[in-house]
Amino acid sequence: MSVNEVKENGKPEEESIIKKLLEIKSREDYLTFLESKEWKEHLLRLLQEEKEQEIKEILDELYDSDIAFFIEQIDKEDAIKLLQYLEPERQGAVLLELDTHVRNELIKELSPEKIKIIVDELESDLQADILNALTEDKKSRVLSLLNPEDRFDVTELLNYPEGTAGSIMSKEIVAVPEDATVNQAINVLRKVSKETDDIYNVFVIDEFGRYKGHITLRKLILSKPTTKVKRIMETELLPIPVDMDVEEVANFFTRYDLITAPVVDEKGILVGRITADDIMEVIQEESTEDILRLGGVSEEETIETPLWKAAWTRTYWLIINLATAFLAASVVKLFEDNIQKVVTLASFLPIVAGMGGNAATQTMSFIIRNIALGEIKEKGEKRFLIRSLLLGLLTGISLSFISMLIIYLLTSNIWLTIIMGIAMFGNLVIAAITGAIVPILLDKLNIDPAIASSIFVTTFTDMGGFFLVLSFASLFMNYLIGV
Amino acid sequence: MSVNEVKENGKPEEESIIKKLLEIKSREDYLTFLESKEWKEHLLRLLQEEKEQEIKEILDELYDSDIAFFIEQIDKEDAIKLLQYLEPERQGAVLLELDTHVRNELIKELSPEKIKIIVDELESDLQADILNALTEDKKSRVLSLLNPEDRFDVTELLNYPEGTAGSIMSKEIVAVPEDATVNQAINVLRKVSKETDDIYNVFVIDEFGRYKGHITLRKLILSKPTTKVKRIMETELLPIPVDMDVEEVANFFTRYDLITAPVVDEKGILVGRITADDIMEVIQEESTEDILRLGGVSEEETIETPLWKAAWTRTYWLIINLATAFLAASVVKLFEDNIQKVVTLASFLPIVAGMGGNAATQTMSFIIRNIALGEIKEKGEKRFLIRSLLLGLLTGISLSFISMLIIYLLTSNIWLTIIMGIAMFGNLVIAAITGAIVPILLDKLNIDPAIASSIFVTTFTDMGGFFLVLSFASLFMNYLIGV
Repeated sequence: MSVNEVKENGKPEEESIIKKLLEIKSREDYLTFLESKEWKEHLLRLLQEEKEQEIKEILDELYDSDIAFFIEQIDKEDAIKLLQYLEPERQGAVLLELDTHVRNELIKELSPEKIKIIVDELESDLQADILNALTEDKKSRVLSLLNPEDRFDVTELLNYPEGTAGSIMSKEIVAVPEDATVNQAINVLRKVSKETDDIYNVFVIDEFGRYKGHITLRKLILSKPTTKVKRIMETELLPIPVDMDVEEVANFFTRYDLITAPVVDEKGILVGRITADDIMEVIQEESTEDILRLGGVSEEETIETPLWKAAWTRTYWLIINLATAFLAASVVKLFEDNIQKVVTLASFLPIVAGMGGNAATQTMSFIIRNIALGEIKEKGEKRFLIRSLLLGLLTGISLSFISMLIIYLLTSNIWLTIIMGIAMFGNLVIAAITGAIVPILLDKLNIDPAIASSIFVTTFTDMGGFFLVLSFASLFMNYLIGV
Repeated sequence: MSVNEVKENGKPEEESIIKKLLEIKSREDYLTFLESKEWKEHLLRLLQEEKEQEIKEILDELYDSDIAFFIEQIDKEDAIKLLQYLEPERQGAVLLELDTHVRNELIKELSPEKIKIIVDELESDLQADILNALTEDKKSRVLSLLNPEDRFDVTELLNYPEGTAGSIMSKEIVAVPEDATVNQAINVLRKVSKETDDIYNVFVIDEFGRYKGHITLRKLILSKPTTKVKRIMETELLPIPVDMDVEEVANFFTRYDLITAPVVDEKGILVGRITADDIMEVIQEESTEDILRLGGVSEEETIETPLWKAAWTRTYWLIINLATAFLAASVVKLFEDNIQKVVTLASFLPIVAGMGGNAATQTMSFIIRNIALGEIKEKGEKRFLIRSLLLGLLTGISLSFISMLIIYLLTSNIWLTIIMGIAMFGNLVIAAITGAIVPILLDKLNIDPAIASSIFVTTFTDMGGFFLVLSFASLFMNYLIGV
């Protein structure tokens, strides 16, 4: 049998794909495999030919998130087919790894019954994530299909406002009363459902269900079975209030190096737990949000966002900027006569305005990041404001000096040099002040500083730059003519 | 005894501080307490009066990181005093929570012997963090004081290049051979030192020390003592290579929702482990880096950075920008004659250049974030480049249309309107192309795209904007005169 015959037959190639997968020993091999186009093309062909056995063998060897990445690259019809070759438990896991847009598209196509089967296999916080992607109508139909206990837990989670500890916690906790023994705690641990395989702590509660302390599994293993849990529990950790902002929860986790933490309601009753994997996601999402918003992109834009939608939100942002640009240009318009007399001013205007913009961006990025990290709340905004002003003065002096040097060398006109020096210094101070005050003020007004600061700040620095150069120039117009 | 007498006596006030601390039940109470100035003033006074007993009582009730925040706000002398009231174990923990600048200042003041006592109580990765803050000379003196095993582990960790998995892993692992029983695994767990209290997994290795699989503590607790570990271990997880980039490690953790992962050398030998708390820190640091660098601020700048140092790095960045601003201004200079003839151009120039800058920032932020998240590597840069171009065309068309409308209304000059429309469209396309290509190219050259992209990109959009407006204007100069 020649190589060609093998190829035409088709089968041995697929076998070689699964053979390759089974031979993988190291992460490098796996990543090299993932990067090759071959397997994707083959898997797609198998899907179109509906070769169940071969497909299942390959899917068995891939991680959920890698299947998700594959799904993001194929048609909706093929994706639905592929999902059906997975066990319900994996269907849920794969759906959760998908980009939100793709996930919502796929879930739309599934019947409430199918969604119910998928949701049954997930932990409560992930159930809530899937249900949140549904229309209200479909959501209540799926909820009605769930068993009462799950329905109760998920409904509770769905009721916590987005962005609070409650919205990211899960209900799967192992809790024992204070007078339980280690042995009893282990028995409770044995009983929790197999979905809850990521248990790191046993929580201890009082008769009212209030959080009292926790015991690490290591301590549980190493203690005598008859020891009372209250004698070995740790009580140092303060539980997280269910309405705490997720960004604060994240700062709390990183500050105290937590892996898992109990969540309590306003009465101190243990209602769930948050683990570090939820927090890693929160930190990554919040940073992505801040970076994209600072750049004027919707925080939800990914490569999977429909093009028209991305174009619209970007255009929307640019239109707002266009309005402020015309506003700044109107300052230039006011002084057109002077520009006509001293046309060199036209080339110097964008320099002062632009440097103000750059300096403002420095201050603004620093302040916005420190708001997000909780540093400003911790150390007081006064310190940040004073420091920003001082930095504005220092950078203002140096930049003004350097610009004066360059401009004197270029024009040999002392008056133009002085005007530009004063304007540069003034605009860098404006930049420092607005770059610090605007985000702090927006944050106080509960507006995300990352989304709106730059609009205000660059309007100030553009107008400031134009106005400073042109108004000083008109004061000294007699000395400038002929430059 | 009147209230005044109590106040003058002094003592009851301190007692009330410790009483307040002991009465704290909820996180809200604790945070309210932390935010009050009272306790800080009292603790400082106690320090100056060297009231050991009272100080220790208060410190006992505070978290390490809150003590660290307090230290950041007091003098070096007081800070050193305070450190000495803490147990060596807590001294290390508090030092690690400090801002790098403050930490380095304090460590400078401590003798190698004192540092040794602190370091003795830490896990290997934290030992390495402290040692990394020392001068080479002091580092080797502290190393020589450590016991041989610790010295070996830390020296190994210190040798891994910064930014690799090796540099953030810890050596404290519990590993058993494949044919060990559950009972034997538990005995090994019992023997590991008390510093290592954050164990979530037992690793299984072969006779050469190569990683084979892991067992969660929950599984260990629930299995029969005589079961062989190899029968219950999980083998799905691929270990992390010791030279993997930390950013990739972080993406790996979030992608597969890991809490802990084994680290292996190039031969597959288990050399350490990484836990989610290290990763949360990495994700937060990398995001801070990206946001600050994108804003033109040193990634190391915090509120604790000495003012002159922050001013210098900011000035340095502004000087580079100043050079590119003069470069762009030289384009305007070339066309001065035309501006003198049609002075309206002077006010429209910054609009086209500025809008190009805004659009470029959108594309650039999106691309840079997707590089950091590993999305571009995963899905191919071609898709991102094509999409950026399409978005550039779409936003270019809409913005160009809107600008034309506004300019026609303002000037009633059809030629000026057309020129501005073409220039706006052209510059938004330039923005989209450079905003996408520059960061991808820099990343390929192993230059952090966040640090250098904006310089190149805004130079392109500034020069592009000026050139497009002015060169089209000179083509149609005859129709523009008199606007």
